[in-house]
Formats: sequence, structure tokens, C-alpha cells
Amino acid sequence: MNDTFAADDVAAFKQAFRRHAAGVAIVTARDPDGHPVGFTATSLASLAAVPPLASFNMARIASAWNAVASTDHVAIHMLGARSRHLAEKLAGPAEQRFLGDHWREGPHGLPILDGATAWMVGRIVARVPVEGNAVIVVQVEEGALGEDDAPLLYHERAYHAPRPLD
Amino acid sequence: MNDTFAADDVAAFKQAFRRHAAGVAIVTARDPDGHPVGFTATSLASLAAVPPLASFNMARIASAWNAVASTDHVAIHMLGARSRHLAEKLAGPAEQRFLGDHWREGPHGLPILDGATAWMVGRIVARVPVEGNAVIVVQVEEGALGEDDAPLLYHERAYHAPRPLD
Repeated sequence: MNDTFAADDVAAFKQAFRRHAAGVAIVTARDPDGHPVGFTATSLASLAAVPPLASFNMARIASAWNAVASTDHVAIHMLGARSRHLAEKLAGPAEQRFLGDHWREGPHGLPILDGATAWMVGRIVARVPVEGNAVIVVQVEEGALGEDDAPLLYHERAYHAPRPLD
Repeated sequence: MNDTFAADDVAAFKQAFRRHAAGVAIVTARDPDGHPVGFTATSLASLAAVPPLASFNMARIASAWNAVASTDHVAIHMLGARSRHLAEKLAGPAEQRFLGDHWREGPHGLPILDGATAWMVGRIVARVPVEGNAVIVVQVEEGALGEDDAPLLYHERAYHAPRPLD
């Protein structure tokens, strides 16, 4: 190993995480005024199957933080390669993310995006603030599978899909 | 969307998460007796860059839990496709994971695996128990980049690498 880096070397930390690839998900909620909010997340992870638990991370300056901080339920969507446009839209300007007919109302009035390979609605069971960020833990209460597709990946600032290793 | 599922449908929850792909990492630590422990994780996520924070999830019945519950520092390794053997070894029988010359001692005496595309040593700043599991948050204090490689992915119970979308 070469090139050790220290804690204040932000570029090196980012470079290390660029060597990690992540699945792409979208989290949606309703803000206190009832408006749909959401964002593209690369931190979705399973925490347990019994009971079904998942976690994701977010910045507390994110446009959706006010909603996630105050609501009981969120919707989590798994994205496939054919739904890259959803990932791009939900990572774009916040005020344009729900302009269009790419979503409908689901359980608890939550925005459910069309074309996800799966969605899950769950109750927030933990919000863990760490510096200006938060880890959110959700207990899944219901969901649905959509059409199957190769999972969408984010790596080196671009979208990918998996290819099997030999 | 078809095929809605309820919270007690473990198979459906697992199926939904099989539509998500994840990067593969290895977490290592020293247990209270000084023995090296570690495990392959598909839940590693960046939480922030300033300060550098990362999170991962684990079951509190995991062989490494006792170490992670009681230690201050852990090492996190990003894996590339050429290091699939490390992922397999650190997901195998716990007592065999450190048999061999695939690791050496790093900062704080932590096991550092040879061949990772990056490693980071950090201080545990939060352990969040949820049911029989825990979310662990680590503040990175130092690290190093290894040789570059395609990031290792886990999807549908098999190892993959990314391919760019058009």
C-alpha cells in the first residue's frame, strides 16, 4: 500500500469512496405542508430481514430533511437501469422533482414512483444525527415488486449496471 | 405495480433487496483478547466528507460483534474485483478468516488486508442498536489507496463488477 492519507484530506477520502460502487435508490416523503419531497440515495442498505429493516444516510441540509425529520413514514424505491431518468430527476433541482406524471400516491399518501423495480413503505424507527448528517432506520411495513431489471449502480460519478464476474 | 407484500413477508422483502446491488467492503477489528476479527459487509456507505464519516450495518449475533461493541477503532476496506477471494474468505468460517498471509498489522494494531483498493481506519462515533442489529458510524482518521481495480459488487448472491450504461 502506498499513499497514506490523513483525516483532513477530503480529496483522498472521496477518492477512497470512489473505489466503492453503490446501488441507487430513491427515498420519498411528504413534507409538513403535504408537498411531495424525495432524493436519490446511494446509501440504502438492508439492516435485517426479521423484522424487515433498512437504513439510509442523508445530509441535514438536504431539501428533504425537514420532511424526513418530521414525518412517520417514507417510501424507498429500488431502481433498475431502465429507470436512470428517475435517479437523474430526483437528483436534480428540488422544485422540479415531482413535476410530471412519473409518480402517484401510495400508502399514507406517499409518492410512489412508476418504474421502480421494487418499492417499500416503512416507519422511521431511528434518526441518528451525526455532525450535519443523519442515519435513518426504517422498518418496512409493505411494498411491491415492479418489473425486473438490472439494478442501477453509481460509480465514478456515472451510472452503471452489474456484469457477472467469471 | 403488481404483487404488493406485507411486513411479515420475509421472502418478498429479501426479493426487493435482491433488486438492489451493493458494493463489497470488509470491516476488521481486534477483539478484547487482541485477536483479529472481521467480516464482509455490503452495507458500507459514505455519510459525510467533512468530517469524513462512513456507516455500516451488522447483526449483533455476528462473530465480530463483541469486538465492534467494545473497541474504539475499526478498519474498513474497499474491495476490487481481483480481491473477490478476500470477500469470500472474510464471509467464511470465522476461525479461518485470518489464517494466512493476506493481512498485516496497521494503525492501532488493526488487521489491514493486502489487496484492498483502499482502506480507512476510523474511530467509532455511534453504535445504534435496532432490534438484534446495529448501525455503526465511523469517523475516518487515516487511510491509504491501494492499486486501482473495478469495484467488487454483490448482487443476486454472486459477485459482479460494474459495466457503464450507454
